[in-house]
This record gives sequence, structure tokens and C-alpha cells, in this order.
Amino acid sequence: MDENTGGLDGLFAPERVAVVGATETEGSIGRAITGNLVADFAGETVPVNPKYDEVLGLDCYPDVASISDDVRLAVVVVPPSIAVDAIRDCGEAGIRNVVVITAGFGETGSEGASRERELTEVAAEYDLNLVGPNSLGVMSTPSGLNATFGPENALPGSISFMSQSGAFITAVLDWANDEGIGFKDVVSLGNKAVLDETDFVEAWSDDPDTDVILGYLEGIEDGGAFIESAREATTDTPIVMVKSGRTEAGAQAVSSHTGTLAGSEQAYEAGLEQAGVLRVENVQELFDFAQILAGQPIPDSEEVAIVTNAGGPGVMTTDAVGDSSLSLASFSEDTLAELSEAMPEEANIYNPIDAIGDADIDRFEQALDIALADENVGCAVVLSAPTAVIDFDDLAEVIGERQAEYGKPVASVLMGGERTESAKMVLREHGIPNYFDPARAVRSLDSLVRYREIREREYEAPESFDVDRERAREILARADERGDNRLGVEAMGLLDAYGIPTPEGEIAERPEDAVSAARDIEGEVVMKIVSPDILHKSDIGGVRVGVPDEDVADTFEDLVTRARNYQPDAEILGVQVQEMVDLDSGTETIIGMNRDPQFGPLLLFGLGGIFVEVLEDTETRVAPVSEREATEMVDGIRSAPLLRGARGRDPADREAIVESLQRLSQLVTDFPAILELDVNPLVAGPDGVQAVDVRLTVDRDEL
Amino acid sequence: MDENTGGLDGLFAPERVAVVGATETEGSIGRAITGNLVADFAGETVPVNPKYDEVLGLDCYPDVASISDDVRLAVVVVPPSIAVDAIRDCGEAGIRNVVVITAGFGETGSEGASRERELTEVAAEYDLNLVGPNSLGVMSTPSGLNATFGPENALPGSISFMSQSGAFITAVLDWANDEGIGFKDVVSLGNKAVLDETDFVEAWSDDPDTDVILGYLEGIEDGGAFIESAREATTDTPIVMVKSGRTEAGAQAVSSHTGTLAGSEQAYEAGLEQAGVLRVENVQELFDFAQILAGQPIPDSEEVAIVTNAGGPGVMTTDAVGDSSLSLASFSEDTLAELSEAMPEEANIYNPIDAIGDADIDRFEQALDIALADENVGCAVVLSAPTAVIDFDDLAEVIGERQAEYGKPVASVLMGGERTESAKMVLREHGIPNYFDPARAVRSLDSLVRYREIREREYEAPESFDVDRERAREILARADERGDNRLGVEAMGLLDAYGIPTPEGEIAERPEDAVSAARDIEGEVVMKIVSPDILHKSDIGGVRVGVPDEDVADTFEDLVTRARNYQPDAEILGVQVQEMVDLDSGTETIIGMNRDPQFGPLLLFGLGGIFVEVLEDTETRVAPVSEREATEMVDGIRSAPLLRGARGRDPADREAIVESLQRLSQLVTDFPAILELDVNPLVAGPDGVQAVDVRLTVDRDEL
Repeated sequence: MDENTGGLDGLFAPERVAVVGATETEGSIGRAITGNLVADFAGETVPVNPKYDEVLGLDCYPDVASISDDVRLAVVVVPPSIAVDAIRDCGEAGIRNVVVITAGFGETGSEGASRERELTEVAAEYDLNLVGPNSLGVMSTPSGLNATFGPENALPGSISFMSQSGAFITAVLDWANDEGIGFKDVVSLGNKAVLDETDFVEAWSDDPDTDVILGYLEGIEDGGAFIESAREATTDTPIVMVKSGRTEAGAQAVSSHTGTLAGSEQAYEAGLEQAGVLRVENVQELFDFAQILAGQPIPDSEEVAIVTNAGGPGVMTTDAVGDSSLSLASFSEDTLAELSEAMPEEANIYNPIDAIGDADIDRFEQALDIALADENVGCAVVLSAPTAVIDFDDLAEVIGERQAEYGKPVASVLMGGERTESAKMVLREHGIPNYFDPARAVRSLDSLVRYREIREREYEAPESFDVDRERAREILARADERGDNRLGVEAMGLLDAYGIPTPEGEIAERPEDAVSAARDIEGEVVMKIVSPDILHKSDIGGVRVGVPDEDVADTFEDLVTRARNYQPDAEILGVQVQEMVDLDSGTETIIGMNRDPQFGPLLLFGLGGIFVEVLEDTETRVAPVSEREATEMVDGIRSAPLLRGARGRDPADREAIVESLQRLSQLVTDFPAILELDVNPLVAGPDGVQAVDVRLTVDRDEL
Repeated sequence: MDENTGGLDGLFAPERVAVVGATETEGSIGRAITGNLVADFAGETVPVNPKYDEVLGLDCYPDVASISDDVRLAVVVVPPSIAVDAIRDCGEAGIRNVVVITAGFGETGSEGASRERELTEVAAEYDLNLVGPNSLGVMSTPSGLNATFGPENALPGSISFMSQSGAFITAVLDWANDEGIGFKDVVSLGNKAVLDETDFVEAWSDDPDTDVILGYLEGIEDGGAFIESAREATTDTPIVMVKSGRTEAGAQAVSSHTGTLAGSEQAYEAGLEQAGVLRVENVQELFDFAQILAGQPIPDSEEVAIVTNAGGPGVMTTDAVGDSSLSLASFSEDTLAELSEAMPEEANIYNPIDAIGDADIDRFEQALDIALADENVGCAVVLSAPTAVIDFDDLAEVIGERQAEYGKPVASVLMGGERTESAKMVLREHGIPNYFDPARAVRSLDSLVRYREIREREYEAPESFDVDRERAREILARADERGDNRLGVEAMGLLDAYGIPTPEGEIAERPEDAVSAARDIEGEVVMKIVSPDILHKSDIGGVRVGVPDEDVADTFEDLVTRARNYQPDAEILGVQVQEMVDLDSGTETIIGMNRDPQFGPLLLFGLGGIFVEVLEDTETRVAPVSEREATEMVDGIRSAPLLRGARGRDPADREAIVESLQRLSQLVTDFPAILELDVNPLVAGPDGVQAVDVRLTVDRDEL
């Protein structure tokens, strides 16, 4: 539902807002919204309700058509039975932006679902930017716009926040306002009948006042579109997101909360990573990351300096660095010389710098100054236990000044209770977060480093290989003609058409064809029964390895007899006669695909046998994949050293595996009819790969 | 240094405390301690300093000998040069408990180290319970004892806390006092010259006023003693601990902070787990776990009910449950019927119970009451977003009352800012922690469930097998006679003596002996060169598999020639002639041991080849291990399904592997001289195991 994207200025920066369903009735949602707008909105609030002439001292109009001035945003709070008509009226009146607070749509029973379909049609007809239905509303702090029925307005800031849970917004604002954390725009997504996460990612990506995009999502409507928009956005705006329903229990809870079926966690994990989203698992990290990304610069390197007056907490900080993608900076000789001069003998001048317990503000400042000046240092954690000689407010000033001078990101750990409160405010003015727990400070800095990597990614387009698409289409069409939706080795031609190497071989329908096929192949052959009804060929003795030419005819008969005995009604397409592949000199790998409802084709790579089946050692990516992504899949499995020649093996031809993954990516992207596909094994030898067997499921309606 | 253990009543509950080095000098440590004692201590403070007649209005004594009344605790704050003498004076005066604040001992250079040795000798001479040196001091809230120089005294409570960092104590108290978190005893361990973590675990384990033992440690002095004491303690008192220096960088930081070399993280991980310690990685979890363990009962089951008025945060809570060892409770039919009656139609009555946004206090209470009454529910999370109809103070009361009524542990997530403050206080009175982040609430409840498992563990003594210890001693002695500290297959007899099955075989010094040995063995044999100087036999062609009897003599000559060519000065003990082991029908495993400086013998188990070397899929435990622990090792590796017969293999004889681990455990416990030992491979077939090769390193000084 992204057809309405464009700018969302009308939504967040209207001059005039109509409240359709405005009222003074205490405790009602219409009252709450009108009141919130009247309280803080810099523009004009226009109540609409045929029952009143005036609401909260403002002229009230009977309908949106009667409003003389130009209205860009309407907030709809009328009962569900008349909501769709109210939205149509907005469309008729030329109001392009509509926030539908009204509930009782898709989140309830079938009546609600059909009402939501109507709403969607009306929105499409008038090309509306529609938020909701079942939304808490929207906020935008520059104009004081609070078109929600929540109890709190947001403080101004540069974080834009979308949430699929209105209650979560209410909770977050209550807390954030006390913490002094501000927002640019806030959107309660509701049922996402029209505008969804992708639209807001696009809008905020283009918004100079949004420094960080934050999201709480329970699902993503269109995974592919989201990846594309998020990739674009994250080149200059970080996205931090909780995608809940990660666990089996959580996914069930999502489905009862929103009524939608969650896609696979594997697909979300791969898709969000490919999209460049910093995915977090809890509320604390969501806001820890958001704050430091909004307040601090991105470091030039992941080398961190730790400056402390307390050895123990310094060690804890160092452990947290070891857990992160940061590394402990090695100071230059000059730095060590300067520290050695400035610090007392008992101090530790190697990283972490321990200025020891009697360090006063000057010693602390010197240590921080020397550390930040070192070009080996990309960022810093400043940590202080409370002592008689350190005033936290003074230290906060010093940290802020030094951070500003060197432009390197700093996280602060002033450890204590209330004595840290005013220092925190000083630090917040410098955009520096403060934590009691050193581990949180380090993880937050780590989010900057991880975002740096994301920002520096170069998104290559997936390679487009020269393939025989027509031949592939014919092979699939033939399956359709036979009425099969499960294909086996008879579809090896698909791989061949897309340039994935397969052993020489053909399917023989008669013994004499098998003999002639075997003669064309050098050496002994492998023979496999070909039947869409027999999926586990080996289990029924439907595969023979190392058959010499003279035994081919007998083996043909034997394989067919076995198959018929096993399953008398099985359709038998013939027997595949295939070149022998040297399994010993290669490594068995698996490349495969299944189609996710949200993200589409999800590619899989792993080593064959126990590695996939017992150790579950696989990498997945949403197709289409670039060469970089395919390479990451191959290198990302735990057992990757086996492909690089661990324990005296020949290294496998990694490039050939990567290329096969890219070609498979192209195949499954070209043919949405392919629902699942497994090449197992793809044997990777020192000089190339060979796809020995294939199995796929197609959606015949898509053919 | 545990000889002084006994009770530590004199340390924490003295009637009279002498401050040796008491003074009124502003800014001095002696002043700070005397002042802290005078301020809060219910007993008598006795200043000792030859320079003064009076300190802070109290009579001051020239030395401890002159004090007429009985003094049980002395705090020593004199300069390092006279500290040892001052401690001796305490001993002479019959003061058994001494806290040494003075720094300048082992944590500084060699002069300090020798001073610390003197101190230890004096402590041993007078059998002193000595804390420190280089300690912040000790606190005990029942008597208001604050014998530290920190700025804050602790609030009363039931958590006893030890820390190897004094600064960490200062920071924690500053924060905890504002949070209302109280302590029973607090100890700054300092250099641990005499009393260490094991002594305090033992003392607090026997203390009825300590409900939870908390620790920040950078090292453990004696791993074996600690495991023993902690096992005993955790049968009724949970221990939560940060052991820092987990990471490589952290371990280096520990070594520069405390001057001690950290043992291996692997040993700490195994040892703390075996000790029943709940190990946490950061400050937040340390206190989250401590608070809920101190305030809430241990649940009867890990089944959790979630009661919320907010769907989205409910889903996040459910995800957190999926990440934990908790599971979502399935409500009984009765519960569902009651909820169905009590809740509105739009509510979700399945777990998580979503009482929806307009839930008032009565609906919330009903939902919680029904959930806690269900016998399938072991614990609960109550979660509320701020709404117009819920007052958090009222809700806190309700949560507290229901928790008390049902006696099941509850964690609370009242989400918001300042509006949660007074509710938090209400909850704290009921011992219920409150969090903004649902994930923290779930992890805290999870710590109760994990402690339940620890408490219920039955510590079986390690089995004592009937072994031939004398023969093992002789084999090791022979190696010593030869001047070797590295042994190979010539030490297979060690395994045999301890009942670990080995293939038939012997070491032949001459070809004719080899021939006769081979004749005694049925079928073909394996022949291996035996030399302490050649560790990688296969690499130099020093191993021959499948040698028929007629080739044994030639093979003998060939192996010896190869060895001599490879390394002319190698000592060659002979050639091992060994029964063939069927590697195909078994699985190659590795059992091994290395000796950790703190924890002693650390056993290792894994599958052979790539599983240990590439995938690092191993389990370790500190020896001696019980049958349960050995079984956990075998079942704990990721590749364990391969032993259970995954992919059509014969299942391996798991009991035989477990027994071999137990026997190896006995061997390395009996002989501290064995520094490292690897049985690789131990071939595990369907009917037993066979140790095919062994390699070990011994400390000849221990023989």
C-alpha cells in the first residue's frame, strides 16, 4: 500500500487540522484529541461535528465540506459505522492526509475486515495518505502538533518514532518526557491499511530534522519494498527497531494482538540485516541506541579509550568492549609519554587509563584530553565512581567540552544515585548519554560503530547473468501440464538453464535409452528413479551408484520394479542416468530457497548432511542477493573453515559456490511460481561445483 | 588462606571497634572511618593513636594493648611502614578480627609484596580473621557498623555483598541508597591476603539474616575450595556474581588492576556453574537478580502468566519469555472460563492476558487474581502502560496484595516516568521489583527459576572406581626416570590402570618383539613409532594402519628409519603394536584435561576432528566430576545428536563415554603431576569405547 508515499508534509506539518468527531464530552477520545491540539498546536484546529456549533471555544463545522479554509489533515474519531463515509467526505473535500483513530476494523472480526477493505478502496480512490485505522494518532513537535488521544505530548528532538502499539507510545512518552528525551515525529501505525513502515522510512529519510528513525513493529507488510527503502535511508539516517514476535511464543502473541500471521523469524532476521536496520531486542537498547545516535557523531574507528578513576568498573568496561565490535585502542608512544608525565606513578596509563581514586577534575580532564587527542582513538568511555574530590557536575562539563573539541563520540558512566541527576542534564545538553552500568555505555557506543559499517556498505545491484529463461519457463510449464507441483531430478534442466553446473545426464524412459545415455557418459554412471510421487529416492532403493554400462539395462528394470512395488500408483517419468561425481574430493553443500509471505524468496546455504540437519549451521538472505551478500552467506557459516581447506583438505572453489547462489537467486526471483527449491548436494570441489540433485515445489497458479 | 574461617561474628557484630590510626585530620582516611563509626555504630568506637588523647570527642588510646575493655575488631589505617607492627599488636592484644585499610602491599611493587608476606605470617601466627589489606573496609547494618572510609553507609537489608573493588562499593551504595536497596553486610575484599571470597561465602551461608550473597570478583583464590563452599551455600542462599576479566582484554585489565594472573575463562565458567553461582555479566543484572531473589519467593514452576493492558508490550514480554528458561503457562479450562466471564469480549484471555487499554483497577485485579490462582501458573509478570483509568499506586497495592496472597513470585512493569516513582516504593515494600523494560522483568524472574534448579541439584560425590593406582604411579615414575615430561602411547598403561579401555597392544623394542606381539593380536595391526620427542607421529609417517603379520618386521625397521631421518637425536622407545580399532562403526571423541592455576584439573569432552578443532564444540568441567556432571558434558555439546544415532548411525555407548570421563577425572585428581592429558581419539562404538592414543605432559617436580 505504498502508492501514496510522496512527501508526508501534509501529515506532519499541516497549517490547519480538522478533527472529525470533535466533542467536549469528558473522557471521550474526540475530546482528548481536540484538547491536545488546542493545547499545543501552533496551527489552527478545526472541530467538525454536526451536533455542535462550538467545541472548546472553537467554531465547529457540520462537515469537512463546509470548512472554508484549506485543510491538509483530518483526524477521524467518529464511530466505526460512519468512519468510511467520513473518510470519503475528506477525499471529496480535497483533504489528502487522514489519521483514522477509530477502531473496529481489521483487528476485530469479519465485519471489521470488510469495513477495512472499504476504507482501503476509498483511500485509493482519493489517493489519501491515511494513517490507521485503530491508531493513537500522530505527533510532530516543530509545530506542536499532537493529534493523539494520549495523555502526554512529546518534547522536541530529532528522533522520529513509529509504533505498531499505541500503548507503547503512551508508555514511552511518559518516561521520555521525564528523561528529557525528545522526538521529531511520532506515529501510531494502527492497522496500516494504507501507510506502513516503508512509507515512514521513506518520509523520514528525506526529513532533515530526523536524525534517527525508531520503530516498534510486530510485522512488516512488504519485506522487499522495506529492504529497498531502508537501504536507501540508512545511507544517512540510522534505523533502530524492535521487531517483536521473534520467538515462537512471541509470534503467537503477535498473531492474537494484530490478527496477522507473522512471517518467519529467519526471514525477518535476514531481511532487517540486509536492510541496514540496527535490530534490538528490548526497550532499553531501543532508546540507548536512539539517544547516542541522535546525540553523538559517528566514530572514524572502533578503537575505544577508557578513562576511569576506578579499577574494578574499568575492568567491567573492558569486558564489555570484548563482547562488542569495539576494540581497546592502543595508545601512541606520544600519548603514553604524556600520560606518564601527567598521571601519578600508581596510575595505569595503558588503556583502560586508571587515574586512580584520588583523581581530581584536572587530572581527569588531562587524561581525557590526552586520550581523545590520540589519532588511534575513535571514541571514549569516561567512567567515575563517586569520590570526595570529584564533583559530577564539573566532570560532566569537562566531558562535554572535550567531546565537542575532538568531535569523537563519548559515552559516560558517572556511577551513583541522585548525585548524578544534574550531571546527566549537563551531559544531555552535549548529547552524551550517561549510564550506571558500564556495559550499557559500551553497547551504545557499539551501535555507532555498527551504524558506521552499515553506512559504508556499498549496495551493489544483484548481478544479472545471461541465462536461458525461456527454457526454464518451458520446464516449469511441462510440470504444470503433468499436473505436478513437486519436481525432482526431471527439473535439473532448470539449473542448467540458469548456468548452475550439473553433471552430464538425461532421463531415459526406456532401458535402451538408458543404455545409450550411459554410453555417451564416460565411466560408470549413477541411476535414479524419476517420479514426482517418490520424494525420498534413496529410502526405497531408487538410486544406484557406480553402474557399469553393461548393467544399465538391468538396473533400469530393477529401479522401476522397486518403485512400482513401493508405490503402485506412482507416476514414473523414467530413470535418470547421470555422470558420477567424485564426492570424496569435494565438500557437499546445500543451496536452497523457500518463499516467505512478507519477504519473498529466502535463500539458504549450508554444508550438507549433519551440518544443516544436526548442527543447523546455515546462513539465509532475502533474494535477490548481490555478490557481497552471497559471499557473506558462504563465509558466514560456522563450518566455513572446512571450505577453506581446514585439516588438510583441498580448499573448495568458493567463487563457484557464490556464483551458484547468485544464479539461484536470479532463478527464484524470475519465477515467483517456485515456492521451495533445494539443491542437495551441490558438490564443491577445488575447481567448481556440481548440482547433483534438485527438488522443488511450485505454485501452479503462478505459472 | 581459609584456615581462619569459623564464624565471622567478630568481624560483623563486634561490640567495640578499635580504629588504629584514628585522627581528626580533615580529608584523611583515619578521620573518615572514625567519623563513619561515630555517626552510625550502635557499639563503642575506640580511637587508637599515640599522638592524641581524644579523637572526635572520644578517649584515644596510645596503643591497642592499653585498651581496658574487650575489643573484637580493629580497623588499621596506619601508614604501610608500620602496618604490620600494628597488626601484630592487635594479635598480641587478643584482637582476632582485623580490617586492614592501609594500601601499599601486594598491589604495588616488590617491597609491597614482601610486606604482604610478612602480614600473612603475622595473621597466621595469631590466627587472625584479616580483611585486606588495601580495603575500603566493612559494613554491617544491624549494628550500624560502617568501618569504611566511603561517603555513604548502607541501608539495612538482607543482601550481603563482597567486592574486589572498593570504588565499585562506593558507586553501588550511592545508587542503592537512592533506590532504597538495602544490605546486611558489605565487605571490600582488598588484596585478600587472608580472608577471601570462600570465607565470606561460608560465613554468609550460615547467617540467617543474609538472603542473597552478591559478589564482584576479579579472581578466585582457590577454585576447588570455592566450589565446595558455594555448593553448600547455594542449597539455601543464592549467590549472584560478576567475575570480571571474562574477555581477553578484560583479563589483561584485571592483571594490571590487581597484579594477579587470571585463570582461564573456561575454568571460571565451568567452576562457577558447578558451584551453583548465578553468574551475571553486568551491574544491572547483578542487582536485578539480587533484588528479586531477596524479595520474592522461589516459584514452584517455570510457567509464567503475563497480565497486561497493552498488547505490544505484552508481545515484547512474551518474546523475553521465549529467550529465558521460563515458559508461558497454559491456563486451565476453569481459568479460561473465569477470565472469559470477567474480561470484555475484545480482551485476550489466553496467556498473555490482555485486559485491554480501558482496563480499570478492578479488571486488572480480577485478571491477576484468576491467573495466580491457576495451579499451572508458577509466577507472573504484571505490565501496565499508563492510561487514564489506572492509577499506578493503586495497581501497585493490588499487585502486592495478590502476590502475598498466592505466594507466587511477581515482577512488575509499570511503564512510565515519574508517575511510577511512588508506585515503585509501594512495590518495594512487597519485595516486588519494577522495571520499565519488560525484558528485565522476565530475566529477573528467570533468575528465580534458575536458582530453583540450582537449589534442587543433588550433589553426588564423584564415584571412586577400583583402580590400580600403584601401576599408574610406576608408569609416571618411569617417565621421570627417563627425564621426560611429555609422554605418548608408552603411557597407555595409565589409562588401562584406571579402567579406561584400550586396544590390545604393546611396545616392542626390537622387530622380533613386534612380530611376536602382532601374532598375539588377532588380524592386522596398527604400528606407531614411540618417542617422547616426536609428538605428531602421523606427520612424519610414524603410523601404519592395517599391517599384516608378515609385514610387521619390515614395518618396524621402516618406522624407526623414518623417525631417525626425521629427527636424528630423537629418543626412540620402540614401536607400538596395537589391535586395529574399527573407526567406521564408532564415533571419534576426545577426552582431555588441562590444569588451571585456580581451579585445578579441567576436563574436556568433544567429538574428534573438525568438531573440536574447527567448530570448537566442547564441554568442560572442573574435576572431580560426578556421574551427573560427566553426563552433562557428553549431552551438552552441540553435536551430541551424532552420539545418539542421528542420520542412521548406530548410537554410541554413551554410558561408556561417561564412565571414561569419570575415570579420567579420578586419574587426574589422584596425580597432580599430570598437567595436561589428551585421549584422542577415544572411539565410541555401540558397545563400549576404546582409547586409541594418548598424550600427556607431567610436572616432574610433583612426581
